Amino acid sequence: MADSDNNAASGAELTPEQLEALLAVRGEIDRLDGEILQRLAERARCAQKVGEIKRGPLYRPEREAQVLRAIAERNPGPLSNEAVQRIFREIMSWCLALERPMKVAYLGPQGTYSESAAGKHFGGAPDLQPQQTIDDVFHAVEAGAAEYGVVPVENSTEGAVGRTLDLLLSAKVSVCGEVSLRVRHNLMSKASDLSQVKRIYSHSQSLSQCNDWLAHHAYGIPRLPVSSNAEAARMAAADPEAAAIAGEKAAQHYGLPILHANIEDDSNNTTRFLVIASHDASPSGRDKTSIVCSALNKPGAVHALLQPFADKGVSMTKFESRPSRTGLWEYVFYVDVEGHRNDPAVTAALKELAERAAFLKILGSYPIAAI
Amino acid sequence: MADSDNNAASGAELTPEQLEALLAVRGEIDRLDGEILQRLAERARCAQKVGEIKRGPLYRPEREAQVLRAIAERNPGPLSNEAVQRIFREIMSWCLALERPMKVAYLGPQGTYSESAAGKHFGGAPDLQPQQTIDDVFHAVEAGAAEYGVVPVENSTEGAVGRTLDLLLSAKVSVCGEVSLRVRHNLMSKASDLSQVKRIYSHSQSLSQCNDWLAHHAYGIPRLPVSSNAEAARMAAADPEAAAIAGEKAAQHYGLPILHANIEDDSNNTTRFLVIASHDASPSGRDKTSIVCSALNKPGAVHALLQPFADKGVSMTKFESRPSRTGLWEYVFYVDVEGHRNDPAVTAALKELAERAAFLKILGSYPIAAI
Repeated sequence: MADSDNNAASGAELTPEQLEALLAVRGEIDRLDGEILQRLAERARCAQKVGEIKRGPLYRPEREAQVLRAIAERNPGPLSNEAVQRIFREIMSWCLALERPMKVAYLGPQGTYSESAAGKHFGGAPDLQPQQTIDDVFHAVEAGAAEYGVVPVENSTEGAVGRTLDLLLSAKVSVCGEVSLRVRHNLMSKASDLSQVKRIYSHSQSLSQCNDWLAHHAYGIPRLPVSSNAEAARMAAADPEAAAIAGEKAAQHYGLPILHANIEDDSNNTTRFLVIASHDASPSGRDKTSIVCSALNKPGAVHALLQPFADKGVSMTKFESRPSRTGLWEYVFYVDVEGHRNDPAVTAALKELAERAAFLKILGSYPIAAI
Repeated sequence: MADSDNNAASGAELTPEQLEALLAVRGEIDRLDGEILQRLAERARCAQKVGEIKRGPLYRPEREAQVLRAIAERNPGPLSNEAVQRIFREIMSWCLALERPMKVAYLGPQGTYSESAAGKHFGGAPDLQPQQTIDDVFHAVEAGAAEYGVVPVENSTEGAVGRTLDLLLSAKVSVCGEVSLRVRHNLMSKASDLSQVKRIYSHSQSLSQCNDWLAHHAYGIPRLPVSSNAEAARMAAADPEAAAIAGEKAAQHYGLPILHANIEDDSNNTTRFLVIASHDASPSGRDKTSIVCSALNKPGAVHALLQPFADKGVSMTKFESRPSRTGLWEYVFYVDVEGHRNDPAVTAALKELAERAAFLKILGSYPIAAI
C-alpha cells in the first residue's frame, strides 16, 4: 500500500500507563457530557414553559444580554469569557428555536459580514434569510416576513452606512440590538516582500489604524492616503512597487498576494450592525438608546438640542449628522446615548429634547452588545 | 415623543400570576445555567489533562465524531439531535482551544461556503485562515502554517472540484474528515411573477433536483438545460420572459430578483468538503476511506481493479474517474469506501487492490460526517 506511512494517525505512541490515564479522563468527560446533556434538556423544557406563559415573541434581547453577562461573571475558568458566552449563545439559540425557528433577514448574499453578524447575535438555530438590499431587509421586517433584520450601520474605515440611516428615519421598525464584528487589515502587494515596496496606499483611517505595525515593519516607506481601501488595492495591483492596506476581499478581487495579515494595531477595530424588529427591548441594566432628530438650521441650534443630555448626565456615545433627504430639514442627527429610554434620566432628557427638536424619532432602546 | 408607541416592547401585558410563574422558570434556568457552567469548567480541565498526557495534536477527528454520535444517542429531547450536536461542537471547539487555537486554512475569502464548512466542522474557536486558492490551502497544510485545511471536493450541481482532486493525487497530506453543507436553489427572473415566465433555464442536474416543485408550481413551462447555473442566470438576466434556477450569489451577481427561494425537492442537497492534515484519523466506528488509483487502459481493467471491494463486502460510496495530468496513466479513479483502512475487510481489499493497480494512494480514513 503506497504512502500508508504518511497516513499513520499520530498519538499511537502512548505508554500503557498514559493510555490508561487518557481513558480515565475520557470517561470523566463522557460523564460530564451526560450531565450537561441532561441539564440542556431541562433548560429546553423551561424554555417551553416560558413559551406557554408568555404570548408574543419569545426572544427577549434584554434577557439574553443579562444571561450572557451573568455567564461571564460566574465563569470559574479555565475557559475564557468569550468561550462560555459563545457556548451559551448557542444553547439559547437552540432552546428558543424549539417552538419554531426565528426568521432573521440580513443583507446577503450568504457569506457576507452581515451573515456573520446575524450568526453572532442569534446563534446557529434561526432561519437566516439573505436579502438583496438593505431596503429589502427593512421591508422583510416591516411586512412580517422576518421577525428580525440585521443591517450594517457603521464601519470603522468606511464610516456610516447611509442607506441604513435613511431607512431608520422613515421605516416602521425599532432597533432592538447591536452587533460588533472585528475588521482585519492586511498588507498586500505584487512585490515579493516588504523590502521591495516603495509606497503604501490606503484610506487615511486604515493607515492610522495600522500605525504601530507600520512604524515597526515599514519604517521610512511613504504612506499615501487614498479615497478607499478598495481604491488602494486597485492602485497596488497596477504598480508592483506599491502595497495596499485593505481587507481580504480586496486582495481576492485584485489578485494581490497578502504579505502580512491582521496588521491593525487595535484588535477591537469593528464594524457595527443593528438588529431591527417591530419592537425594541426592555431594560437589561446596560443599555443604549438610539434616536434621530432635527433642529432648525440656525447657529447654536444643534448645541441647544443636545443640552438636555448634558443637563441630565446622560452620556452620548455617538453623534452623526446627515443631510436630510426629505427637504423638511437641512440635517438630521443620529444620536446614541447610554441608558434605556425608561431610565428616569433618559426619559427626562428625551422629553426636553422632544420640546426643542423640529423632529424626534426614538429608534429604540437595546442592550449593549454582550459578546 | 413621536413614534414612542411603535417602540413599546411587547410582553408587558402579563398578569401578576403569569409574571410570578415567568420569574420562577427564569430562576430555574439560571440555576441550570450555573450547573452547566460548572460542568463546562470541569470538562475544560479534563481537556487540559488530556493535553498533559498526550503529545501531538489534541484534535482527534475520530474522538469528536464518537462524542457527537453519543450525544445524539443519549439525547433525551426536547432539543433536536442537530441542536445538541451543534451545542457540543461548540463546547469541544472551545475546550480544545484552551492550549492554543488550532489553525485552519480554507478557500477564502471570508464568507465563502468553505468558511461555513470550516466553522461547521471545527466550531467557533479555531483561527480560520482564508487562502486565495485551493493550492494555497494545500501548501499551508504541507508547510505546517496551518494544522488543518478545508477544501471543496464535490458539488451536487457542478460536480467534482477538479483542482482538489488533482492536488490530493500529489500533495503530502491526508484526508482526516469530511463536511457536508446544504445547497439551496432559487427561481429568479426579471418577470414580476411566475405567470409571466415563458422558459426556465438551469443546469440539468439542478432542474431535476427541483422537479417536484416545478411540477407543482411551473407546470407546462418549458425547462431548458444549459451548461451551468451561472450561465442560466446570465441568460435570464437578458430575457425578461425567462427564469433561471441558481444559487443566491448568481441572483446577486446578475441583479435577478428571487421569485421563489429554496425550491429544491431534497433538503439534503449538499456540497461536500474534505478536511486535510498531515495525518488521517483513527477508527471511530463509522468511517470512510478515500483512495485514488489507476489501472492500465485495457477493457475490463477498471472492473477488475474494483473487484477486491466486492469480494470482501466493502461498499463503495463514490467512484469518480478523471483524466490523468501526469501522462503516466490515462485515467485516475477516486474511490470512497465504507470502513476504516484498519478494518480487516478494508485492509484485505486494499492489499489486493495494491497488487492489481498501476498506482494506488490511500488518501486517508476518517469519520463519516456526524452533524
